Formats: sequence, structure tokens, C-alpha cells
Amino acid sequence: MEDKSSAATGLQSIRCRAAVCREPGEPLVIEEIIVAPPMAREVRIRIICTSLCQSDVSFWKLKDPPGIVPRILGHEAVGVVESVGKDVNEVKEGDVVIPTFIADCGECADCLSDKSNLCSKLPFKVSPGMPRCGTSRFTDLNGEVLHHFLFVSSFSEYTVLDIANVTKVDLAIPPNRACLFSCGVTTGVGAAWRTANVEKGSSVAIFGLGSIGLAVAEGARLCEAARIIGIDVNPDKFETAKKFGVTEFVNSGSLGDKSVSQVIIEMTGGGADYCFECVGMASLVHEAYAACRQGWGKTIVLGVDKPGSVLSFSSYDVLHNGKTLTGSLFGGIKPKSDIPTLLKLYTDKKLKLDKFITHEVGFEDINEAFNLLIEGKSLRCVIWMNK
Amino acid sequence: MEDKSSAATGLQSIRCRAAVCREPGEPLVIEEIIVAPPMAREVRIRIICTSLCQSDVSFWKLKDPPGIVPRILGHEAVGVVESVGKDVNEVKEGDVVIPTFIADCGECADCLSDKSNLCSKLPFKVSPGMPRCGTSRFTDLNGEVLHHFLFVSSFSEYTVLDIANVTKVDLAIPPNRACLFSCGVTTGVGAAWRTANVEKGSSVAIFGLGSIGLAVAEGARLCEAARIIGIDVNPDKFETAKKFGVTEFVNSGSLGDKSVSQVIIEMTGGGADYCFECVGMASLVHEAYAACRQGWGKTIVLGVDKPGSVLSFSSYDVLHNGKTLTGSLFGGIKPKSDIPTLLKLYTDKKLKLDKFITHEVGFEDINEAFNLLIEGKSLRCVIWMNK
Repeated sequence: MEDKSSAATGLQSIRCRAAVCREPGEPLVIEEIIVAPPMAREVRIRIICTSLCQSDVSFWKLKDPPGIVPRILGHEAVGVVESVGKDVNEVKEGDVVIPTFIADCGECADCLSDKSNLCSKLPFKVSPGMPRCGTSRFTDLNGEVLHHFLFVSSFSEYTVLDIANVTKVDLAIPPNRACLFSCGVTTGVGAAWRTANVEKGSSVAIFGLGSIGLAVAEGARLCEAARIIGIDVNPDKFETAKKFGVTEFVNSGSLGDKSVSQVIIEMTGGGADYCFECVGMASLVHEAYAACRQGWGKTIVLGVDKPGSVLSFSSYDVLHNGKTLTGSLFGGIKPKSDIPTLLKLYTDKKLKLDKFITHEVGFEDINEAFNLLIEGKSLRCVIWMNK
Repeated sequence: MEDKSSAATGLQSIRCRAAVCREPGEPLVIEEIIVAPPMAREVRIRIICTSLCQSDVSFWKLKDPPGIVPRILGHEAVGVVESVGKDVNEVKEGDVVIPTFIADCGECADCLSDKSNLCSKLPFKVSPGMPRCGTSRFTDLNGEVLHHFLFVSSFSEYTVLDIANVTKVDLAIPPNRACLFSCGVTTGVGAAWRTANVEKGSSVAIFGLGSIGLAVAEGARLCEAARIIGIDVNPDKFETAKKFGVTEFVNSGSLGDKSVSQVIIEMTGGGADYCFECVGMASLVHEAYAACRQGWGKTIVLGVDKPGSVLSFSSYDVLHNGKTLTGSLFGGIKPKSDIPTLLKLYTDKKLKLDKFITHEVGFEDINEAFNLLIEGKSLRCVIWMNK
């Protein structure tokens, strides 16, 4: 009889520190927890550093499902493999890995296709547990289950991931840069590079100049777009955005009678070739769609709106305008094959990351990282586990 | 002083027969009318034959704007240039031309781009007059203005078109085949070939097996799709559809508790690579979108829905499913460059047209052509002007 228990591997549970979300919207509580050994096709990793993404804040606040407490948030990180479960051959102890909230199983039709990054064997979902079985590997010292977040839960010194959710990397770049490839930078750069495939010399409009929007700008710059128009209600963001390749700005809060789309259409003589919605508001998707060029304009949705939010388009318009609407999850990036390419672009000094990192804190100051992001003071705040 | 009047060209008005829509939904009245000479950048053509398209029927019935009477309907035809206005060098008397409801001015950013077929200088609209000036070239014998339709108005022995709305062709194929390239066949074949760019070996689902849907099937067959699934409420259409390359059928009227999208997803193991909506119902666009494959599925809207009709999609779905939504007007075909290519595909016996022509009548029986289409008895009924 085959023994699938982790006990059979001889691995022990680890006691370590984690920042636990005990109540929605309340400061995370750093406490000691127990991290179970990895099961079959899982790996346990020691987090080197993690960074804070807007989605962590959104789910931290969320009182209703898929919000859940107690939970260990965090999904943008870099770590070192501490131990591996049964049937894991892809990585070994000591390997550096980048966790990703989307899986790359390498077996399903999606993972085998160049056209999709949406693993159908281990599909993306906001689950409180592991992707294959739904159970948790975390408990607190009272034995209470602590829930996972986005299959990563990087706000812990140790976490357990499915092998499909880690990409082994040859870490020639510092961990506080590498962690950005785990979510935000990859999502934005990928949306321009993979999903939209921005054409050299084209015009790009970016709705929302947060980290994702700026990463789209960086991707558009890499693709040699001629015009990169940034749109935001906060003109303070414009100076920063210039460093990311944004060439023109629209302050959407002071347009008078005009809509953003009217302004973009005037600026571009008909509409932008590509419009990226990076905020997560249905009304902005509608503006983005209206602002993109008839005949060939592409609107790419990156922003996460409220559950139940609906995008509506005139049937007549859709038929007659030749525009395309699509979404981009994780920038259309296939983790195991594309992240190494992005890392190389960074080491070759083509992709510029350093300017994303505005703050760095030690793990005990993780709640300060939340404050900085909420107050709009940070783009990416790196949280070092052992600083 | 430059004299732009047609009198300056020495051309005279022509008295000829036309089938006039005097009242919405009432039989067309064949009567004598006056066709003015072509103005600058216009041509007057003698229609050889015309065929009846569903849009003619829709506008014939339409009581509210953009419906208007009296009007000369018809927009799918082939003709011979009778005379040309000032500044027309592209064609001369005696040239065979295919009229198209979309323009190809050859000058605007869209016409100069490979990516768009939506002329921005003379944009598509349902106008009662000519594209540049909005006026009519038709009057009845009492001097009343007769309105144009889709810049073509082919239910007349003679009609006047803008030079941007005619494509000169080397007529190696019979007129009763050539006329089909003027709208329906081109729209459907083009949607598969140009808009979707259907990949060899892929799966295609076609919602609605009227002429447009069957032309999509023909296009998908040309592109070597492996599976072409036809969906219709009328199973009588399935036998015909087989001749057009449709390989499987779904009777959407007898699915019990299942939706069409559920059935397509089951049949294809996840969804069709391409879904074409050819009916013109928002609910069917939603089904088509739901039925296409996550990760790379494309939904192409070809059907003309009621004015004001709205397409609604979950913001969450759009972000997370990797699908693309787009419309296809005239199949993404650029008239002056692509129609000759399609004609060659026909003469090379690759594109099969003959089976579209189910009926042929003389001009005096044009109302019979309407009855045949309304009763679902015809795919294309060719109307010969001088039979």
C-alpha cells in the first residue's frame, strides 16, 4: 500500500513567524505558526523577501467571501526551496524560485499551448487552500487552520506551494528585484508584450498610473510604442510616470465637459491603438473601449472590479467598429517559460525595474508597508523576512 | 470658375425601371424613374444582376429611422460602368464593377492600413443619399426624390455610386456568381479568413445557418478548420449546411435544460476556438462568448441586432478568461484589394459559391425573391435585370 502522507518523506513541520490577517482591515498580527511539510507535488519554501500588491490590500479589507480570516496574505515574492514533497523532480532543496498565483502544470492543453497562460488543470481561483486538494498547510499554535491566499501566502517565513506555482530561476539579480516578477511587473509588462503585442511606433493609452499601469508603460516602452499616454485623477503621479516611459498625460479629474475618450481621440486623431484599463472600474473600461482606434484598436482589461460588475457595449458598436476587447491575467505570461525571459531582459538592462521599488522594510514593519500603499506613497514596498 | 455640374460632362439623365419600396413591408413597385448623371468622383452603372440579402428585407420592413420611403433597396450586385463623373480615372465605360456598401477611398489611414476595412473618409452609415454629399440621384416621374440604400441601391436598372464604393473586376466568372461577392459571401468568408484568421485544425462554432453563417462555414473550410459546428433552431438547415463544410450540428431548440454554450463546451472539451454569431441577437452573442475556449477563444459578431441592443459581460470573466470579442463588418474585407483575391479563389475552384444560389428570377418577379427569403426557402435568389 502506497503511503502518501508527508510523514513518509521524513519531513517535519516548521515553526516560524507569519503575519496573519485575523480581522478584515485590521493590522496583520505577526505570530508563530506551524507550516506542515509539503505533500506530493508540493514544495516548502523559505521566503527571502515579498512585496505588497494592491490585491493583498483589497483582500485584507474584504469582509465577504472570497474574503476569509484568519488568512496569510501575500503573493509577490522570491524564496528558496526548503524541502520537496513526493513526485517533485523539477526543483530541489536550495533552488531559488519565484511563486506565481497562476499555475503552469506543463500538462494541460493550455499549458502546452503558446496561446494561453490559463492552466486548466489547476485553474486560477481565490481559494483558501492548496490548488489540488483545497486544504491548508498552516495552523496557529492553538491548532486553528490559517487559510492560504492565491496559492502563495508569502507573508510567512515559510510557505507551501504546488510545484505548478513555482518557477525555478537562476538568480543573477537581487531578491528585492526578483520578487517583482511574481505578480505586478510581470502582469503589466506582459499585458503590453504578450496580450496586446504592442506594435513599434504605435500609440498606447493607460488608464490608471499605479504599479500595474506603470508596468504596462514599461512594457510599451520595451515594445517601442511611439506615444504612451497616461491617464489618472492624481496629477502627482505624472512626474513618476515619466520615468516609466509615459510621454503624455491626461488628468481625468479636470476635463470639464469632455470625457477621457474624447480627449484621447482628439490627441491621437482617432483613438489610441491600445488602451489598457488598470484601475478596475467598469466605467473606465467603457472609456478605454471608446478611446481606442476604430478598425484595429485593442482594449485590454487588467483591473479587478467588484464581484458582479458588468461591462456593457452597444451591439451596433461592437459589430461596426472593428475593435477588440480582451482581458489579461498575469499579463498573458506563461510563468515557467516567460519569467526567465523577463529576468534576462532585466539583466540585459532592457527592462527597468529599480524605479518600482520605493520602500523597503523589515518583516516586523509589514503593516507600515500597507499604510504606504494605501496612502499612495509607495509603488512597491519590499518586505525582507530577515532584515 | 470651375463648373462641377454634371451638365458640364455632357451626360444626360437616364429613364429606366426600378423596384421602389413605397411603403414599409409592402411589395416593391416596379416603375420608371430618372437616374441623374454621376457627379464628380461618382460612376453610373447598369446593373446586370442583383441578389437579395437579409438586410434588404430588414430595411424593407423598417418603419422607423433609419428606415425611410420611398427608397430603392438592394446592395448585392454586379454591373457595368455606363458613365463616369469628373475626377474618375479608376474605371471607364464598359468596365465590370462590384458595388460594396463599405467604401475603399484609398487615401485615409484606414484604407492605407492592412489592419482596417473601415474607411474613415467615407464611413459606413445607413444614409438615404450619396456618401459625400448626402443627396439622391434618383427621382420618380413626378419629380419626387427616391432615397438610396447603403450607397448601392441595386434594385434599379441603373444606379449611381461613389468611386470608393465600386471595385473593378476582371469578370472571368458569371455575373450570377460575381454578385455574391458584393455582400453576403464576402462577409461570411472574410469573417473566418480575415477577421478571425481561423487556424488550420481548429474548431469553429457558427450560430445561425443562414447565408452568412454558411459563408462563414465555407471560409472556415477554406482555412482548414477541423471541426465546424453549426447551430440553428431549424434542423432542416442541417442537410444544406453539410454541403458548406459544416461537420456537426446542434439543434438549439431541443437542448432541454442545457444551454447552447454548455453543449458546445462538452462537444469540444472546453469550448470552440472560434465562435461566430450570425443571427443578430445579444443573447446569442453571450452564448457564443460563453462557448468559446478560455485562454484563446475568439467571438466574432456578424449579426445585426436591433438598434439600442446591448451586449453585457461579467467584468470578472473578461479579465480572467483570456477570450477576445470583436465584430466583423463586411468580413474585415478591404474591397479593392481583397475582392479580386476572393474571385481568384473561386476561379481556382477553392471557394465554392454555386451552392449559395438556390433561385434565379427576372426583375419583374423581385417580390417573389422577397417571399422566398422570408419563407426560408432560398439562400441567395439572383434577380436578373434583363431576363
